[in-house]
Amino acid sequence: MSTPLSQRLFDELDALWLVDPHTHINPHAPAAKQLADILGYHYYTELAHSAGVPRTEIEDPQLSPRDKVRRLAAGLAPLENTAQYQWLIEILQQFFGFPYDRLTPNNCEEASDLVERKASSADWSAEVLRHSKLRAVFLTNDFDDPLTGFDTSIYVPCLRTDELVFHLARPTVRARLAKSSGVEPTNAASLKRALAARFEHFVARGARACAISLPPDFVAAQVPAEEAERELGRLLTQGEVCDALTRNRVSQFVFWTLAELCREYRLPFDLMIGVNRAVYPGGVFQGQDLYDSRVSLIQYRELFNAFPQVTFPISVLASVTNQELTSYAWIFPNVVTCGHWWYSNTPSLIERDLAHRLEAAPLTKQIGYYSDMYKLEFAWPKFRMYKRVLAKVLAERFVLDRGWSEERALALGRTLLIDNVAGIFGETAPPAQA
Amino acid sequence: MSTPLSQRLFDELDALWLVDPHTHINPHAPAAKQLADILGYHYYTELAHSAGVPRTEIEDPQLSPRDKVRRLAAGLAPLENTAQYQWLIEILQQFFGFPYDRLTPNNCEEASDLVERKASSADWSAEVLRHSKLRAVFLTNDFDDPLTGFDTSIYVPCLRTDELVFHLARPTVRARLAKSSGVEPTNAASLKRALAARFEHFVARGARACAISLPPDFVAAQVPAEEAERELGRLLTQGEVCDALTRNRVSQFVFWTLAELCREYRLPFDLMIGVNRAVYPGGVFQGQDLYDSRVSLIQYRELFNAFPQVTFPISVLASVTNQELTSYAWIFPNVVTCGHWWYSNTPSLIERDLAHRLEAAPLTKQIGYYSDMYKLEFAWPKFRMYKRVLAKVLAERFVLDRGWSEERALALGRTLLIDNVAGIFGETAPPAQA
Amino acid sequence: MSTPLSQRLFDELDALWLVDPHTHINPHAPAAKQLADILGYHYYTELAHSAGVPRTEIEDPQLSPRDKVRRLAAGLAPLENTAQYQWLIEILQQFFGFPYDRLTPNNCEEASDLVERKASSADWSAEVLRHSKLRAVFLTNDFDDPLTGFDTSIYVPCLRTDELVFHLARPTVRARLAKSSGVEPTNAASLKRALAARFEHFVARGARACAISLPPDFVAAQVPAEEAERELGRLLTQGEVCDALTRNRVSQFVFWTLAELCREYRLPFDLMIGVNRAVYPGGVFQGQDLYDSRVSLIQYRELFNAFPQVTFPISVLASVTNQELTSYAWIFPNVVTCGHWWYSNTPSLIERDLAHRLEAAPLTKQIGYYSDMYKLEFAWPKFRMYKRVLAKVLAERFVLDRGWSEERALALGRTLLIDNVAGIFGETAPPAQA
Repeated sequence: MSTPLSQRLFDELDALWLVDPHTHINPHAPAAKQLADILGYHYYTELAHSAGVPRTEIEDPQLSPRDKVRRLAAGLAPLENTAQYQWLIEILQQFFGFPYDRLTPNNCEEASDLVERKASSADWSAEVLRHSKLRAVFLTNDFDDPLTGFDTSIYVPCLRTDELVFHLARPTVRARLAKSSGVEPTNAASLKRALAARFEHFVARGARACAISLPPDFVAAQVPAEEAERELGRLLTQGEVCDALTRNRVSQFVFWTLAELCREYRLPFDLMIGVNRAVYPGGVFQGQDLYDSRVSLIQYRELFNAFPQVTFPISVLASVTNQELTSYAWIFPNVVTCGHWWYSNTPSLIERDLAHRLEAAPLTKQIGYYSDMYKLEFAWPKFRMYKRVLAKVLAERFVLDRGWSEERALALGRTLLIDNVAGIFGETAPPAQA
Repeated sequence: MSTPLSQRLFDELDALWLVDPHTHINPHAPAAKQLADILGYHYYTELAHSAGVPRTEIEDPQLSPRDKVRRLAAGLAPLENTAQYQWLIEILQQFFGFPYDRLTPNNCEEASDLVERKASSADWSAEVLRHSKLRAVFLTNDFDDPLTGFDTSIYVPCLRTDELVFHLARPTVRARLAKSSGVEPTNAASLKRALAARFEHFVARGARACAISLPPDFVAAQVPAEEAERELGRLLTQGEVCDALTRNRVSQFVFWTLAELCREYRLPFDLMIGVNRAVYPGGVFQGQDLYDSRVSLIQYRELFNAFPQVTFPISVLASVTNQELTSYAWIFPNVVTCGHWWYSNTPSLIERDLAHRLEAAPLTKQIGYYSDMYKLEFAWPKFRMYKRVLAKVLAERFVLDRGWSEERALALGRTLLIDNVAGIFGETAPPAQA
Repeated sequence: MSTPLSQRLFDELDALWLVDPHTHINPHAPAAKQLADILGYHYYTELAHSAGVPRTEIEDPQLSPRDKVRRLAAGLAPLENTAQYQWLIEILQQFFGFPYDRLTPNNCEEASDLVERKASSADWSAEVLRHSKLRAVFLTNDFDDPLTGFDTSIYVPCLRTDELVFHLARPTVRARLAKSSGVEPTNAASLKRALAARFEHFVARGARACAISLPPDFVAAQVPAEEAERELGRLLTQGEVCDALTRNRVSQFVFWTLAELCREYRLPFDLMIGVNRAVYPGGVFQGQDLYDSRVSLIQYRELFNAFPQVTFPISVLASVTNQELTSYAWIFPNVVTCGHWWYSNTPSLIERDLAHRLEAAPLTKQIGYYSDMYKLEFAWPKFRMYKRVLAKVLAERFVLDRGWSEERALALGRTLLIDNVAGIFGETAPPAQA
């Protein structure tokens, strides 16, 4: 943001109405009601915990939201350097009129009051969407979500499938699948029918993607039918005590079946590659996952070859995988780079990763950004962070280094931010409100 | 290029006459004859394919060159952001007087005319060399290339050995080796004699390097003589159906033998590390290879120790390996960093990789750049891209950060671009033409 | 350093009095006596060797220090581009009044004279400390170091444990442990008592950390008691010929035991992750080690979970591991990022790694820098290099990009450079001398 040129580009990008293609918004409670809804975001609880706040102090179920805020506010000072803290302050200032640039025990009551006052208005969600220039946000729905009671043109369903692929051994997962699909999954064929029923349901309600997060050691492979039947039978019989090999083969089988259904139902399959779950079981809620950056897209080679009709928007957890992602998108027609995920969602990594994507992969195969948010207020500061970096890269690498006009650079930015979301997931949203 | 300082440095670097130490030029047809020779470069076919052009549409053997150009031109818009596209436009503008900054279906006929008019002149190759300030270009010759009919002081032979190391199980490869060497490779000893005969042939015709590209899982190791004999015997008997272990041990044996011959014939051994072939078999010609970035130079530890007399100019496919390459060049006298290869040959990665090499490894152990081109026209925009980055790094990190004079910074650039090529591969070329 | 803003920040940072939390200083001979003590640093011998100076030429035991300097000076020209060379010239100019910006055969006698003249003064070490604004430096002490004869408030002991973990099979190591601890390590229990005795000794003499360097394939794991007993017994019986599995299990057992002792004695456990020893056995002294960058902190998952009471300041050898390190520090309360180690200790890598740490991990969990030096003169140019990068990152990413005041940015820098060293290792040093 340090030059007038990048500032001009930022201002133009910032005027665009967007669709956010990946969030964890609950459409029945999309915006914050109180400061604890914002400060309870795992980025703050886990960072505060890492910097010294005991887990028990902030996860006591008896704790009132105000008390939770007080305890967290007392532990925020060590995080002031982080990009995540900047999101927080920008939200408080922009949406709630918070007059300070730090949230401390001394002003957190005032902040709580400010949030509650604004957020209590009946159309607060709509106001946040409007202010954030969001036309629509994609959701992350459990496979048995009825998808009722909300406007699916604004809150766009997406079928999340981690549980089906990795936790089918759990009786509760199977029971939920049976109940929601009306099909008891007793073998490969009925499992596939059950899954197809869920695709049917989701697509009928406007779902735009199937999505999954994957551990770094997952290898996508087609399991021969007989072996799939045998291993699935073993898993259904033994449940969670079945051995790791069986679990893994069933995971591969279910994953492959989902890809087949994506082909059949014409859904893009969002792959979020690289997370190890519960690496730190003593961590706070949603603050226990980490990763092993030794992962390669070569593990998905068989998949990309087998499903040329399915588009795979891919997010990678570690920036060291970004060059592979870019190269695979450069070669495979069905591989698309997608956003800057989680541990790679900070300015210096975005800058590095974005600069390489823009110089090496076709422009139409890059989904610029998604917020991954749980509450609507977060799209604004997160997209803003991204747009600042995008403006910088466009200014330095296209306008200055390559002599592009500002208008041409902006067209590139618009393609990343708007056109590709529509082109890859389909037009989803009502017209932008002026 | 955004400061007068880096512009001045660039201008000086751009005035140098160079030797290009790695290309795929066919010395019997070194320059383009028509636009299809330029647009047919795999960078454009694979990117256009990745962005939506069906392979069949551009690889139909019945297709005329003009029609191929038309079809590709219709698919280029999504690539305009790429560094590769910039090479194309710079070539068209600089060599052929193309007046536009985009190649589209509307102007591709005009572009074709322009190229054909210029390229039909009898001394077009010489003119391209002159304009590009190229004193010589290294070739990539098949092991059975007779190396006749061209001026080896300008088109410098290099012995490419991938087929010998990885495809000796193919009867055609062995037949070509037997025919070209006059030795039937029936065991380890005769295989070595056959290989030595090819070294003899290449060196006699001015070859300056032995070269090979290697997959990420290759480990260089000396195979004990008895085991080598046994595994080679198995491979010669069974041919392509022999098992993976046998293939691998024979690959290791042949590779090691080549290193011995490099020592004997005093040839540098160019290692291009990290490519997986045919990851996307449905891709276009030469657009099917990708990689697994999980590779380490520790896999070559035994080699570097065993051959202190052989210089190994090393290219790595993925930028994440660049720090290892730099560190190994910092420690091992016989390891040299070499250029910016393929998927790492774009400005942001070159900048990152070059900056680290320049701050950490001896200056004399760094070969700045090679074009890897198939047609002569590409050296100019590719070296230009490199020189822009080099000028930027010299300006920022040496003149500004370290207070070097511009002259001292330029001397450093000249060492990378000129002196080290001569120092490592030997003086090869006729004097620069003024 | 190219802007007035970053220069101002640098000047402020450069005025701070520091504690250097990791060095290899010999407290009985902390500063150089002659130029050979400086030029004999492995960075110069290994780089000169890599660039062409034969090992035998500089490691001849008959060689006088002056002759060694002459031979090295003749081989330094190819290193002038390196950051390491810049340290050398800055030391010569700053501490010894060397009037040139290159060290050559023509001026190396003069340089030798200058060094010897200054360094012969009785309080030279104190003067170097004062000039470098060093309040204290941490040492790297062998486990059997008596820790006597020096001021431990300035030269702070740290218990280095590589030999105990990786070389317990050597009779000499066990003999030294038995002698220094008074306990013969004949089984798991007595080994632990022997180790505890050394902790007791070190802590009583003001030790502030236990430290170890680890190869990339090491996995921290608790070995079941019976297995530990069995494998240790085998190793004690067989000595160095015991198999790799036994060695590895014993290494894991000893390492785990050290972590238990760190918990008991409240010492941070410095982990320096990623080095392969003796990759190039033909290299110069201390110039034989390299690495395999395929390493993950997931290998330490069990350790971080098992020892929440122990702080682990972690250094990683390869920059590709920096994002993992940052993420683990962001999640695990007991993981702290620590300095920029060895092959990653050059400006472009520090900039990249530091920028990410500062935007993503709590500020209080980052130890900015340590010199790793063998002679006191090196702290000054090394910290200076770091502070230049820190000033640049603070200027660009905090003052400009995020609108921070310079004072706030400087407070952040002070936390990295001073407060965290005291907070994590404890107050160690006498008050700064004005």
